[in-house]
Amino acid sequence: MRLPKGFVASGVRAGIRKKRPDVALIVADGGANAAAVFTRNRYLAAPVVLAKAALKGSGGRVRGVVVNSGCANAITGPEGMAAARRVQEKAAELLSCPKGEIFVASTGVIGVVLPDELIRQALPGAVYRLSGLGLAAVSQAILTTDVGPKVAQASFTWHGKRGRVVGVAKGAGMIHPNMATMLAFLMTDAPASPAFLREVLKQANEESFNSISVDGDTSTNDAVLLMASGKLDGPAMTSRAEAHSFVKAVTQVCRDLAWMIVRDGEGASRVMEIDVRGARNVRDAKLAAHAVATSPLVKTALAGGDPNWGRILAAVGRSGARFAPSKTSLTVGGLKLVERGVPVPYSEREAVKLFLKERVPLLISLGDGPGRATLLSCDLGHDYVTLNADYRT
Amino acid sequence: MRLPKGFVASGVRAGIRKKRPDVALIVADGGANAAAVFTRNRYLAAPVVLAKAALKGSGGRVRGVVVNSGCANAITGPEGMAAARRVQEKAAELLSCPKGEIFVASTGVIGVVLPDELIRQALPGAVYRLSGLGLAAVSQAILTTDVGPKVAQASFTWHGKRGRVVGVAKGAGMIHPNMATMLAFLMTDAPASPAFLREVLKQANEESFNSISVDGDTSTNDAVLLMASGKLDGPAMTSRAEAHSFVKAVTQVCRDLAWMIVRDGEGASRVMEIDVRGARNVRDAKLAAHAVATSPLVKTALAGGDPNWGRILAAVGRSGARFAPSKTSLTVGGLKLVERGVPVPYSEREAVKLFLKERVPLLISLGDGPGRATLLSCDLGHDYVTLNADYRT
Repeated sequence: MRLPKGFVASGVRAGIRKKRPDVALIVADGGANAAAVFTRNRYLAAPVVLAKAALKGSGGRVRGVVVNSGCANAITGPEGMAAARRVQEKAAELLSCPKGEIFVASTGVIGVVLPDELIRQALPGAVYRLSGLGLAAVSQAILTTDVGPKVAQASFTWHGKRGRVVGVAKGAGMIHPNMATMLAFLMTDAPASPAFLREVLKQANEESFNSISVDGDTSTNDAVLLMASGKLDGPAMTSRAEAHSFVKAVTQVCRDLAWMIVRDGEGASRVMEIDVRGARNVRDAKLAAHAVATSPLVKTALAGGDPNWGRILAAVGRSGARFAPSKTSLTVGGLKLVERGVPVPYSEREAVKLFLKERVPLLISLGDGPGRATLLSCDLGHDYVTLNADYRT
Repeated sequence: MRLPKGFVASGVRAGIRKKRPDVALIVADGGANAAAVFTRNRYLAAPVVLAKAALKGSGGRVRGVVVNSGCANAITGPEGMAAARRVQEKAAELLSCPKGEIFVASTGVIGVVLPDELIRQALPGAVYRLSGLGLAAVSQAILTTDVGPKVAQASFTWHGKRGRVVGVAKGAGMIHPNMATMLAFLMTDAPASPAFLREVLKQANEESFNSISVDGDTSTNDAVLLMASGKLDGPAMTSRAEAHSFVKAVTQVCRDLAWMIVRDGEGASRVMEIDVRGARNVRDAKLAAHAVATSPLVKTALAGGDPNWGRILAAVGRSGARFAPSKTSLTVGGLKLVERGVPVPYSEREAVKLFLKERVPLLISLGDGPGRATLLSCDLGHDYVTLNADYRT
């Protein structure tokens, strides 16, 4: 997949990981306007602290992005911060730009200081390989326990011209609303200011990455970056209504990447699409959806293709959401299982069939209120345990 | 283990479960004063609704307790309630007491109406088998996916006499603070009013069953019942200070049962003892402890004996607790891993050894505040997935 005009990228092997590419470089030749959202975890990894400061200091301008897998450089104190800075400085030197225009991101094991020497040695090679076709290499270099690469694209029109949005992400493990060990980089040729990009990204993020949950853990390193080269002719975008085609394209790319991240949740085989309606308010709807999305009992039942709806309602019941049990209903993939608090006779065979599909839509109605929330989650199977019981050692 | 004076019990097979005893009966010949705590799940199972009402209606008097495994009789509507009532009525008839003095409890699959006919047919046999040595039969009949039975005892002195507290419990799966598919029945010969028992049980419960977490799910059916026959000579207990020996014994039995429940968490092989200190307040300490206790990434790392402390702090970081990362420290089994936000060099071999023990004590210090919380949790291994991916079908 070709990158939007104004961007080139590459992926190389620095030696942080064994036998796998582990450093990605994305460059906006003429610079790009940018906006980002970051994890809300209290422990911010050194690259997150640095990237936040850089974006702020440069007024939302980004020339280059350096991403590494294999080491999160999180909870590594001043040493980790110094290592991240050295990577930033080296990239700035190679791209002849202020270091504040270099956005850094890391993913991998927590508590290990970034082996920045390896990355700095690999950067000249990464610059040499920069190309408009480098997205595939980026998508491979940023993976950790992901099963496969994740890229998505969408197009939009702006004053008669066709523009593009291209995104690449890594996820799997610790994926959860409010972000996770999840990195996503979106590039577009749209003419948009950093402020406008912030507005668009905030909403798109809410409807995509913040609506997924793999295991309830959120990470120290998450970041979503949206960069716009402005190479598409046309006036600068200022209103979301006027630029609705662009807004839709950004949201679609975020959603597609979010779906791939959940589907690729460590060891996952299917996706629950949780839709809570009729709650007293949005907060209650979110509480209920969250409890179902993160319940190990629900997630293991899903792994087994077991239509154990009692676990779903039990999770709703302990979620903290206020509702009348006698007003709750549950429908799975169009099959009604519980109606106003009472089980409905249903075909067990049909229910099992629905629980064995790749998409399992759950509709949970809590009453007549206006509150609604949706959340994607995946099953918890043996592969999750295998992957996570000894990922580190 | 002999029951305290005033109690007899039995366990029989009613046919709800295949080839296993599934109905337990506990009888206080002369009646007992009682107090109970119940689940806070919004979906209250029929037996919970009925037992609550019975205790209230009888002024805290209990003659008999009927417990069944194999069916939770939860989310079963009016039909389930009628079935539970018929069990209560049959037991009252057999024990010649008001039906309000029969405490009922159920555990097992949600959403299936109690096959009360089977239980009513089995009750006469259970009455016939009542004995002061019936605790072992009770401990077997109330199990579901538990690996083994759970009983505990402690003694106390009251005005020169030695009294006893004996407890029996079932747990495993869905165990979590605020109760879970967890049933516990405590019997004592102490002379205590229902009001005093409530006071004692409330505190003991807080320090035991409400401080454990197996998988974050809480059930529709949990109940802890404390019964006192008053057969021990002496004045009625009125002050916790004066009856401190009794309070200690009740708390100890609750704690021992809680430990057994966590250790026996579905498929668990070790127990994390999470101790959070120095938080701004108790609420923040609890948030942090809870996030660690329920993190699938932490629990799978523990299953693998992997000292991946980054996952522990990442869980604390996303818990919602407010603290300064630079002031946090982490110690595992006496080995300091992180000091004031920076990793301390440690022997990986020693750390692995500590993570492979049956008890893994985690001391998480968040600063200089007064907030403190402790929580027990277990690991999440393949056996948990195997047990839960197809428990129902």
